[in-house]
Amino acid sequence: MAIDPATFAIDPAFPLHRGGKIEVRPAVRIRDMEGLALAYTPGVARVSQAIAENPALAYDYTWKGNTVLIVTDGTAVLGLGDIGPMAALPVMEGKALLFKEFGDVDAVPICLDTKDVDEIIETVVRLAPAYGGVNLEDISAPRCFEIEKRLQERLDIPIFHDDQHGTAVVTLAALISAARVTGRSLGDLRVVMSGAGAAGVAVSTMLVEAGVGDIAVADTKGIIHHTRDDLTEVKTLLASRTNSSNLTGTMVAALEGADVFIGLSSGQVPDEAVASMAPNSIIFALANPNPEIHPEVANRTAAVVATGRSDFPNQINNVLAFPGIFRGALDTRSTRITEGMKLAAANALADLVGDEARPDYVIPNVFDRRVGVAVSSAVAAAARAEGVARR
Amino acid sequence: MAIDPATFAIDPAFPLHRGGKIEVRPAVRIRDMEGLALAYTPGVARVSQAIAENPALAYDYTWKGNTVLIVTDGTAVLGLGDIGPMAALPVMEGKALLFKEFGDVDAVPICLDTKDVDEIIETVVRLAPAYGGVNLEDISAPRCFEIEKRLQERLDIPIFHDDQHGTAVVTLAALISAARVTGRSLGDLRVVMSGAGAAGVAVSTMLVEAGVGDIAVADTKGIIHHTRDDLTEVKTLLASRTNSSNLTGTMVAALEGADVFIGLSSGQVPDEAVASMAPNSIIFALANPNPEIHPEVANRTAAVVATGRSDFPNQINNVLAFPGIFRGALDTRSTRITEGMKLAAANALADLVGDEARPDYVIPNVFDRRVGVAVSSAVAAAARAEGVARR
Repeated sequence: MAIDPATFAIDPAFPLHRGGKIEVRPAVRIRDMEGLALAYTPGVARVSQAIAENPALAYDYTWKGNTVLIVTDGTAVLGLGDIGPMAALPVMEGKALLFKEFGDVDAVPICLDTKDVDEIIETVVRLAPAYGGVNLEDISAPRCFEIEKRLQERLDIPIFHDDQHGTAVVTLAALISAARVTGRSLGDLRVVMSGAGAAGVAVSTMLVEAGVGDIAVADTKGIIHHTRDDLTEVKTLLASRTNSSNLTGTMVAALEGADVFIGLSSGQVPDEAVASMAPNSIIFALANPNPEIHPEVANRTAAVVATGRSDFPNQINNVLAFPGIFRGALDTRSTRITEGMKLAAANALADLVGDEARPDYVIPNVFDRRVGVAVSSAVAAAARAEGVARR
Repeated sequence: MAIDPATFAIDPAFPLHRGGKIEVRPAVRIRDMEGLALAYTPGVARVSQAIAENPALAYDYTWKGNTVLIVTDGTAVLGLGDIGPMAALPVMEGKALLFKEFGDVDAVPICLDTKDVDEIIETVVRLAPAYGGVNLEDISAPRCFEIEKRLQERLDIPIFHDDQHGTAVVTLAALISAARVTGRSLGDLRVVMSGAGAAGVAVSTMLVEAGVGDIAVADTKGIIHHTRDDLTEVKTLLASRTNSSNLTGTMVAALEGADVFIGLSSGQVPDEAVASMAPNSIIFALANPNPEIHPEVANRTAAVVATGRSDFPNQINNVLAFPGIFRGALDTRSTRITEGMKLAAANALADLVGDEARPDYVIPNVFDRRVGVAVSSAVAAAARAEGVARR
C-alpha cells in the first residue's frame, strides 16, 4: 500500500504538485511610495475605519465578498479515508484551484488539527469575519451533518458541504437528462441507492425533493427501513422520507425491476443483479476509482451509464456545481445556500444538455465553458426569489 | 471622527481597495482532462497518500513551505486601536500583498472573532498543518507576548509578532547607521525610549542585546524603574534589563543629555526637551501619522532624524524586514526565528547602507530591490548557524 519514493520522479502528479498548486497574489500593483501609502499605511487606515463604522462595507472594500474557506479535518479524504489534515492539503489545494478556474472564487485551504466537532465549529466561527462562505470538505459522516447544521445556525454566510450537496446537484441533473433519454418522468422512477454516507444521504434527500417516485437506500446492513433498530438519527430521518415501497433486505434483492441504480459506496454489485433491473435501466456507478458496476457490465443491459471517472462518458463531477453555486451565492451576498438554490443549479445543468441529451451525454462536460455562468445565474436568481440575497 | 461615505468616491484609497487587494490563484495551469486528473482526482490521491506516509513531504508537494498565516484579533490596528477583526482585514490584506511583493511569500489573512488568549492560541494551533509560519499582527499588549510565547512552545514553525520584532530589526539597523554617521559606538549611546507597548518592549530588548549602552524606557507613568510597584510582568523584566543609569521620573527629564530618542508611542515631546538632548543627537520619532517630534523641530538640533512616514527621509518601515525574515526562515524550513536571525537581519540592512550612510540615509529605501535577498540570505545563514534550520 505504501508509495515508493522512486515513483516521485516517474509519476507526473508529483512534479506538478511541487511547491503547491495555488498561491496568494496581489490583486493590485504597488509600484511606488504613493501606491504603498494607499494600499498600506496611511491609506488603509481610512478603509479600516470606514468598515469599523459600517461592517457591511467589508463586502465592498476587502476580499471577503469573493473568498471562501475550504475546511477539512482530513477524516474522509477521497477514497483514502482518515489520512489527517496535512495529507489532505493537496486535495484542498486542488479544490481551491478549481474554485478559481471554474468560478473565479478565491478559496483558502483550512486543514484542521482536530476531529472534535465542537472545536471544528468554534474554529470556523472564529475565522468567519474575513470570509464570505465556507465549503466543508472530506469530513466523515455523521459528524459532517452536525457541523454543517450548527455552522449554518451560527453564521450568516453560506455553509456548504460539497461532498453532500455538490454531488446531489450533479447527480440530480444527470438523472433529469437520463429520464428524458429513456422516456420516463422523475415521478415514475424507482431508484436503488447503495451508500448512506454523506453523499448518499444528500443525494437521496434531494431526489425526494425533486419528485423522484421511490428511493430505497442501502447501507452495509441492507435497505434502510423504519423497522430497523440500528439507525442513526440521520438514517432514521432518511427512512421516513424514502422507501415508500417498504422494501427490506439486501440492496441486491431490491435491484430486481428497479429503474435506477446510484452507487455512492465502495461495494461491488454482482452482474446478475445488474441484469435483474428493469429494461432500459439507468446506472450511475459513482465510486472512484472503481465503480460499483464496471461500465462494460452496465452497458450490457442499461440505457444510460454514468461514473465518476473522466475516461468514460457521463462523468458525474462536482466541479460542475460548486464553483457556480458559490459564485451565485457570493454575487448576491447570500446568507445561505437553500434547497431552492441547489435545485436551480441542478436544473441549469440539465437545461444545458436539454434536447441534445443522448445515452452518452446526460451531463455537460467539465470543460464546457457555459456551465459556470449558467449555474451561477440560476443560483443567484433563486437566492433572490427565496429572500436570502443581500443584494 | 466618522468617515463620510461621500469621500469613498474622492479618496483614491477606496477604489484601490474595491474587491480586495489579494487573490488566490492557481500556480499550475489546468487546460484539459489530463491535467485535471493529475491536479485533482485521481492523481492528487497519490500525493496525499505519500504525505500521509511521510508528513515531511508536505514541504515539497504542497504550498505549506511557502505560506504563512497573518493572524490578528483586531485589537491594536495601526493607530486605530481595537476596531475588531473585520475592520482589520484591509490591513492584513495589505500585509499579505507586501509579503508577496517583497518576499515572494504567500500569506493568508486570519482575522479572529475572539480576543480570548487561550482561544486565539488553540485556533492557531489547529490551523498550523497547512502553513509554514505565523505572523502575528496588531494584537494588543500584553496579550501579544503570551500568545507569541505559548505558540512558539506548541508549534514547530516560526511564530513572529511583526509589531515587536520587525520594528526592532529595522530600528536597530537604522541606529547602527546613525551611530556611524555621528561618530559614536553603540556601547556609548544613552537612549530614551517613549512607549512600552509591544514595539517598545521588543525594540529596547533588541537594543540591549545588540550592545547599546543604556536605555531608559518610559510608559505613560514615567521611566520604568525596578522600584515602581505598578509594573506588569513584562515591564518588570524590562526594568531588570534596562535603565542602568537608574533614572526615575518623567521621560522629558530623562531626555536631558540623552544621545538618542526613540518614540513608539503617540505622545508629543516638548520642543525644550528636544533641545536639551546631547549635541548631534539622534531622533527616531516613529508614531504614525503624527511623529512624537515633528522632523522640522527635530532637525533644529539633531544630527539624524527618522520617522515612520514616507514623506520624510529615513523611513523606519517594517516592510524592510518581515518579508526577507520569513523568506529566509521558509527557505531553510526553520522551526523558529531566533534572536540571532533577527540580529542578522538588522546587520544586513545596516550593511546595505554601509559607508554611504549620511544624516538623511541611515536605512535603505523600501523599494531598494537588494533588501529582500540581503535580509533573507543573512537570516538563512543565521538559521543554519543556530541549528534551527531543517535544510
